[in-house]
Amino acid sequence: MLKGIAASAGVSVAKVYKLETPKAVITKQENCDVDEQLKKFDAALEKTVKDIEGVKARAAKRLAADELAVFDAHLMMVNDPELAGQIQQMIKNDKVNAEYATEQVADQMVTMFESMDNDYFRERAADVKDVTFRLKCNLLGLVIPDLTAIDEDSIIVAHDLTPSDTAQLNEYVKGFATEIGGKTSHSAIMANSLEIPAVVGCPGVMDACKTGDILALDALDGEVIVNPDEATIQAYKEKAAAYAKEKEELQVLVNQETVTPDGHKVDIAGNIGGFDDVAGVLKNGGEGVGLFRTEFLYMGSDHFPTEDEQFEAYKQVLEGMQGKRVVVRTLDIGGDKKLSYYQFPEEMNPFLGYRAIRLCLKEQDVFRTQLRALCRASVYGRLAIMFPMIATINEFRQAKAIYEEEKAKLIAEGVKVADDIEVGMMVEIPAAAALADQFSKYADFFSIGTNDLIQYSMAADRMSEHVSYLYQPLNPSILRLVKMTIEGAHKNGSWCGMCGAMAGDELAAPVLLGLGLDEFSMSATQILRARKTINNMSYADAQALAAECVEKETMEEVQEVIKKRLGK
Amino acid sequence: MLKGIAASAGVSVAKVYKLETPKAVITKQENCDVDEQLKKFDAALEKTVKDIEGVKARAAKRLAADELAVFDAHLMMVNDPELAGQIQQMIKNDKVNAEYATEQVADQMVTMFESMDNDYFRERAADVKDVTFRLKCNLLGLVIPDLTAIDEDSIIVAHDLTPSDTAQLNEYVKGFATEIGGKTSHSAIMANSLEIPAVVGCPGVMDACKTGDILALDALDGEVIVNPDEATIQAYKEKAAAYAKEKEELQVLVNQETVTPDGHKVDIAGNIGGFDDVAGVLKNGGEGVGLFRTEFLYMGSDHFPTEDEQFEAYKQVLEGMQGKRVVVRTLDIGGDKKLSYYQFPEEMNPFLGYRAIRLCLKEQDVFRTQLRALCRASVYGRLAIMFPMIATINEFRQAKAIYEEEKAKLIAEGVKVADDIEVGMMVEIPAAAALADQFSKYADFFSIGTNDLIQYSMAADRMSEHVSYLYQPLNPSILRLVKMTIEGAHKNGSWCGMCGAMAGDELAAPVLLGLGLDEFSMSATQILRARKTINNMSYADAQALAAECVEKETMEEVQEVIKKRLGK
Repeated sequence: MLKGIAASAGVSVAKVYKLETPKAVITKQENCDVDEQLKKFDAALEKTVKDIEGVKARAAKRLAADELAVFDAHLMMVNDPELAGQIQQMIKNDKVNAEYATEQVADQMVTMFESMDNDYFRERAADVKDVTFRLKCNLLGLVIPDLTAIDEDSIIVAHDLTPSDTAQLNEYVKGFATEIGGKTSHSAIMANSLEIPAVVGCPGVMDACKTGDILALDALDGEVIVNPDEATIQAYKEKAAAYAKEKEELQVLVNQETVTPDGHKVDIAGNIGGFDDVAGVLKNGGEGVGLFRTEFLYMGSDHFPTEDEQFEAYKQVLEGMQGKRVVVRTLDIGGDKKLSYYQFPEEMNPFLGYRAIRLCLKEQDVFRTQLRALCRASVYGRLAIMFPMIATINEFRQAKAIYEEEKAKLIAEGVKVADDIEVGMMVEIPAAAALADQFSKYADFFSIGTNDLIQYSMAADRMSEHVSYLYQPLNPSILRLVKMTIEGAHKNGSWCGMCGAMAGDELAAPVLLGLGLDEFSMSATQILRARKTINNMSYADAQALAAECVEKETMEEVQEVIKKRLGK
Repeated sequence: MLKGIAASAGVSVAKVYKLETPKAVITKQENCDVDEQLKKFDAALEKTVKDIEGVKARAAKRLAADELAVFDAHLMMVNDPELAGQIQQMIKNDKVNAEYATEQVADQMVTMFESMDNDYFRERAADVKDVTFRLKCNLLGLVIPDLTAIDEDSIIVAHDLTPSDTAQLNEYVKGFATEIGGKTSHSAIMANSLEIPAVVGCPGVMDACKTGDILALDALDGEVIVNPDEATIQAYKEKAAAYAKEKEELQVLVNQETVTPDGHKVDIAGNIGGFDDVAGVLKNGGEGVGLFRTEFLYMGSDHFPTEDEQFEAYKQVLEGMQGKRVVVRTLDIGGDKKLSYYQFPEEMNPFLGYRAIRLCLKEQDVFRTQLRALCRASVYGRLAIMFPMIATINEFRQAKAIYEEEKAKLIAEGVKVADDIEVGMMVEIPAAAALADQFSKYADFFSIGTNDLIQYSMAADRMSEHVSYLYQPLNPSILRLVKMTIEGAHKNGSWCGMCGAMAGDELAAPVLLGLGLDEFSMSATQILRARKTINNMSYADAQALAAECVEKETMEEVQEVIKKRLGK
């Protein structure tokens, strides 16, 4: 038995498919024919583009829009004249073989990114590795295993799974175990999204098994057993069955309301990145969409999407949600999210910089185009619009005035616009939380963006490993800001939702319920479990719990109180 | 008459001293003798180091420690093997003359820094210009005018004043007018610090006058009159006298208490960067030091200052303040403040990163050395210690425990430590403001750092011109966080001060008074005016004003209410 990190819950027993990626062994050749090498390189580059497009197309069948963004990043990288240019330059200058030049340039870039002591750049290093590995294999004529060819129930065992790998997992893949990785590594996130059990960070697992062995994968307790005996297999099969039964029990909640035993009703909605995610929200009983991240429309394009392109995208989602409310967040770009066709200013602290509504109020053409598309789509469902990164009342009033202008123009042009569009805002900046009772005079609703709210409230970038310990959703200071926001909303009859990671957190749910949160928006796969929690807790108890938590001193004390109350 | 920006209040009439900096005209010479050029360059570099050291020494007579930091930056730059190395490399590779190589490398660096769309990097560009201009003049044998030679009352007229220029202004300089610059440009800040009237951003002023002309400089209304007639000279002399009289009236407040007519007493203290600033605080009637920025001890050194070095520095300040309270902030490094001898991690958002107490809790040796030095110095005055960037109760408890440990160790070693040292914290992170009533169980006092508090609360880096409009001290959201902090302090009998720029702001003072702030700490030159404001406003009125302001929606509304109340 090997121990690892349970990264995506579940239990499986199946045959091993050991992923042996080819070894790209490259030797330096000098005095090469430059033209020949350049031709070879161009062909490999072209094939690599096609390969990635193929992977993306296959992945699009199972993955959500925001999870596909990684392939856009890869395509951008492989199409970047900088990368190709450097390699071509080296071929010309040094007369070396294309494989060698590719490896040299790639190693340099990887070293550069990895030397930056920062998660974001390390992800970029992973992207470079993934893309240039494919390039080198194409140059060497090596074939990267086609995981889509798996046609019997299997558990994949690998050193690591790249984004390209995970994107190709089909329905026969019953789980995977990898040597490296952690709970927040790419492969872990994908496993959760695909609802496949996964154990990561399990050193020795590659040496411990070969293709065809039997593996019991326990991704509840983080254990991997190679070739277990019959009794053990039986035990794990029972564990898998019990887990499946629990999931099935959750299934009965799909068509139920979210309501406490003492009659307090809330909504549980799903976060989506595009139309592809709508089915998942409905399948899991989502009572609406609490956050539609429209930035993926922009990031997946090579130009600002036109009004018509956007209209089609919004219409599709609104129709797909069958009259359930869809909260669309207007363009939230900047910070760590860039666009290939827009020049952002260089800033020392991009998270505290020019982004989201700040950009939209300046680049009003971009903003107006989106608002017009939304207004036109509004007649196809129940639309709510929210503005991201609102810090002051003036910003909200200005954004809303622009919306009113475009709406009035459309109506004057004879275009039909729904008359029940709600207009609200993200509360993700501490200043907005502190002034929530004033904002609610103007905003129909709030949605608390906990990722940013916590980041700014703690003055700690959670992407920086040096301070990520300060990302504390259950710190009483954060709970108080959440409380202020909810009470501020209710003071003027607005409703308050939450669409950050905290909304889907099992420990946080009872407190948020008790603080009076009206809507919880989360990943589709979290919805039913959250509904179960709420449908089993009295509102009066939750209120008492929340009142106790906001008076605690530390996150640890809050966690203890909640666990005690939940009997954990 | 020319119009400009009044950057440092005052009125002067005096002769013009036109600052004509030499033009360094450089032509490219090829096929030079490399050794000869390198020798010439080394000599010029050595002279440049000495020149800057000389300027710094002369400047130290009039300037405060934090204002001298710019020369440390210049010395670091001129001693940086990277800059010299690039120039030497170019001399060797291209066999060009040293002047030409210096200019090429300098231009490249300036272009790079200026292309970064960010105030911080633009300041670095100014530094490079200043340093390399001096280097080029030394190579060409050109003499940079020695402003310390001015020996009759003069007003300097210049295109711009560099840090080196302003640092050399002596008591004969009665003001200056420059073609370029704004209210926050370096020269404006220096003029304020030196209490010299200054009009900046005054295009055409160089062409309009010559050395020996008479100039009336009105830095109250931003006007410059060249060769005015007798009547005009008289009028401006009267204006100057009236202004001087008002300043004199402020002088009577030096030894008075800060107390409202209805008997509410507060303290007004000064912010200092080192012992050199102590005299200014006392001269201006400061009731203590509300912020001693110890980072300059570290930034002005090439190693972590030893316990003894620090002990001497703290002792000097405590003795200098003659028993008045000195609030010492422990090392606040990181963000935009780096050390040459410590490797900070690369972070995407340094303002949200590894800095201040976060660093001290990790690099405990550094922290313990400082705490020991402080404890040892405590017997020489009235010491208060505060920790910067506290976000959670655990951090404060941990920092205080380390302090207690070191104090106990010293006592066990037989060292005398004062038994009345207060231990408090900066409140500059929104989470700390929201939880102030819990923090005050442990902290003897708070000092609100408004610069950072506003920055984080608004999620806007004020160094970025794209979002600096969100730096709004008088936004009701900020006032509410300040209110929460003060009330939180008082709940457990702690006192609450403020040491950010807001504490010295004339519009903010009445509101802060009304919110119950106990201590206002500011630049020494702002103290008396602030005392006048407070001594002329009833506490009851201020409380009513504050109560009204926190219920407003926008900064503009708050400003209007205050101005109305102040009769402005």
